[in-house]
This record gives sequence, C-alpha cells and structure tokens, in this order.
Amino acid sequence: MIVGYGPYVDSIADLITDQQVITSGMMKESERCRAALDAARSGKRVALISSGDAGMYGMAGLAMEMAAADGDHIAMEVIPGVTAANSAAALLGAPLMLDSATISLSDLLVPWEMIVTRLEAVAAADLVVSLYNPRSKKRVMQLEEATRIFRAQRPGTTPVGIATAVGSADQQVVLTDLDHLLEQEVGMRSVVIIGNSTTCVMDGRMVTPRGYYEKKDREQE
Amino acid sequence: MIVGYGPYVDSIADLITDQQVITSGMMKESERCRAALDAARSGKRVALISSGDAGMYGMAGLAMEMAAADGDHIAMEVIPGVTAANSAAALLGAPLMLDSATISLSDLLVPWEMIVTRLEAVAAADLVVSLYNPRSKKRVMQLEEATRIFRAQRPGTTPVGIATAVGSADQQVVLTDLDHLLEQEVGMRSVVIIGNSTTCVMDGRMVTPRGYYEKKDREQE
Repeated sequence: MIVGYGPYVDSIADLITDQQVITSGMMKESERCRAALDAARSGKRVALISSGDAGMYGMAGLAMEMAAADGDHIAMEVIPGVTAANSAAALLGAPLMLDSATISLSDLLVPWEMIVTRLEAVAAADLVVSLYNPRSKKRVMQLEEATRIFRAQRPGTTPVGIATAVGSADQQVVLTDLDHLLEQEVGMRSVVIIGNSTTCVMDGRMVTPRGYYEKKDREQE
Repeated sequence: MIVGYGPYVDSIADLITDQQVITSGMMKESERCRAALDAARSGKRVALISSGDAGMYGMAGLAMEMAAADGDHIAMEVIPGVTAANSAAALLGAPLMLDSATISLSDLLVPWEMIVTRLEAVAAADLVVSLYNPRSKKRVMQLEEATRIFRAQRPGTTPVGIATAVGSADQQVVLTDLDHLLEQEVGMRSVVIIGNSTTCVMDGRMVTPRGYYEKKDREQE
C-alpha cells in the first residue's frame, strides 16, 4: 500500500503497479500517518511517501512518534533520500562544501522565537544555511527577518542561491546576494541557501571554498 | 573516465565497463581534481566520484575552485546524493526531523577555534548536530571537546547516535547518550548525531519529535 500527499504520489506514478493508494491533502500529515500505521498493523506492507529525504522535515519521525504513542512495535525502515538542500546545492554549484545548517522558517512546528535564536546563532557562527519553507503567500515576514539577521553579520554581497520546484517542469534556479534576496521570487517550494563569509561566485556557480587552509593544502602537495 | 579515491571507485565496480579509471589515495584530493580537470579540458567526459553527496565535504567544490583558478569554463554537473548524515539518520530512526547542523571536527580545512565557535553556537541554539570526521587514531581531543560543549548545554541523557561505515559489510549503528558517547567506538567512517532537548528514544529509535506544537496540530485536525 502507498500512502502520501497527492502530488508526491503523482511523482512516483511510474513505480505504481497494482498497489492500493491512499492520498490526502497538505496539513493532513497525522491523518496520513494514522492510515499508514493502521494498514501496517493489519499486516499490510506500507510505503509512506515524502519528498526529498523522509527523515528531514518529512514523515519518518511523525510515523515513529505516533506508533510509539500507540505502544506499537511496528517494523519500519527509513529509506534515506536526497534532501532538498542537497538538490538545491547541486544545481547552484557547491555551496555546502563545509559546515552548514538547515533551518525551517515555518513557525507551525517550532515557535518563532526559537527560530530567531537559531538564525542568530548560525549567522554569528559563519555557517552556510539552507532555509526550508522560506516564504508562503501568507507568511512573508519570516524571510525578511531572516535576511535582516544574516545581513547584520555578513556583507550585502554574500552570495545567496534560490532553487525552486527542483526536479519539476517549472524548476527555477537564481543566484543573487543578501541585499537582493527579498526582490526575488521565493515560495513554499523554494530552498534558499545563504553563503558564509568565504562563499563566492565562480564562473556562475555558488561555491564555498574547500578551506581557509587551501594554501597550506597546496603547499603540502 | 572515472576519477576517485580508490575505495570509492571500488564501491561502484558494478557500474564500470570500459571506462578509463584513475584512482589515488587519501589526502590527494587536489591531485585527483587536477587529473579530472585536465581530462575534461582535453575533451573527455569525466566522472569525479565522492562518497555520500559530492557537494557535502566532497569533491564538487574543489573541482569548481580549481577550474575557476585556471580561468577555465568547464561544464560541470553535480549529481546530488544522500549525504552521510542522512544515511546515518535513517538507520538510527528520525533524529533530523527539524532544524539541524552538520559540522566537521577535522581541523585540516577549518581552524579549530572556528569549529569550537560553531559547536558552541549550535549547542546553545538547541540544534540537532551531525558530526563528520569525529575522531581518528591521531585526532581524539576534538570529540572530547565537542562532547564537553554539548554537555554544558544539554543533559547527559540526551540521545546520541553513531553510525559507522554505513552501507558497507562492517556497518555499525549504536544508540547511546552524551554521558556515554566517549566510551563508544567512533572513527573516521563514523557520523555522530547529537539530539536536541526534545530528541528521545522511542521503541529503540532515535527520534526528534515533529514539533513543540504537536498538540496544537492534533487539535486542528
């Protein structure tokens, strides 16, 4: 049996043969998990579908949490995937070569004050950051605030990459900088990658160089 | 043509047919990149192999950096992969469900003081962290220091997962906690994932619950 958000199930249409399929809309994550767990409990072999990596802002954790709350010992296997930050990074160049963080700007699951604390910590520690759920039609303040926080710690020329709807027909990749980020089209299907103090644009690609020690490395050769 | 570190090339033996293969040892990253770039410049189609995701502590960035230093416009495509933190997380449960950071404890490419700053920032901001290159035979102090930094911010019972040699015959997965981390076997092929204040062990799995707002989410349904 296959359980998932409609568009994600559509994207694996070529893999579906005679399996039973259960789809549901956005924001119905718990309902989908419940259906998957009930089916597994009844002896079915169930695939619960996420986009990207199921263990990064996906369904793996919720399924485990709900199974544990039920006191159930359901056998589960997480199939790791390419998380959105990594697909975005590959299209932009190589911005995640060294230490980085992924932070979701959605305050549905984490209080906004905690997200601000994390953005400030990551900005100050010169980590490259991948922002998930950066902006939606209703939610525009969060990306403005995140940009302000990074701008306070990094120059306006710091490279920023935006990859939207990666892998779909309307995939878009934009290379900009902190000072021009808010003018760009950014939506719920975008990942925004903000470089650190060493990130630069090389031949049209966003690259975080291999190390402060590149010179030393060359001398060692 | 295929260029890569010997053991990585061995791991794709089933994909190699009549391609020319160039391998070299560890720490010879620049040399391998040079060989790949020279071959590409001569018109060859070259695959430069990394383990995990080539854009996360892999070869993608170095290749771009070296091509740019040469003033070359070599067409490159990064094929995104499953980074080590995601494979490790999938085996452990679902520890990366929300905001997290990846930090390498190797001070070959980043000064140790910067790594300490990052560890302190990430520990204080309650981010889950995946530690890459946590310990080697020669380098044991770094994991001790990282553990001390996280222990200052989080209880000793905070779940810690260690996944070693993921995907190979001697794969090992250990679930422990901050107070017992240093007693475990950890090496260069290990990824160490330290939970945040909400991460817990559920039915033998390390899970970072979906959100502080789980209750609210349930009420919305």
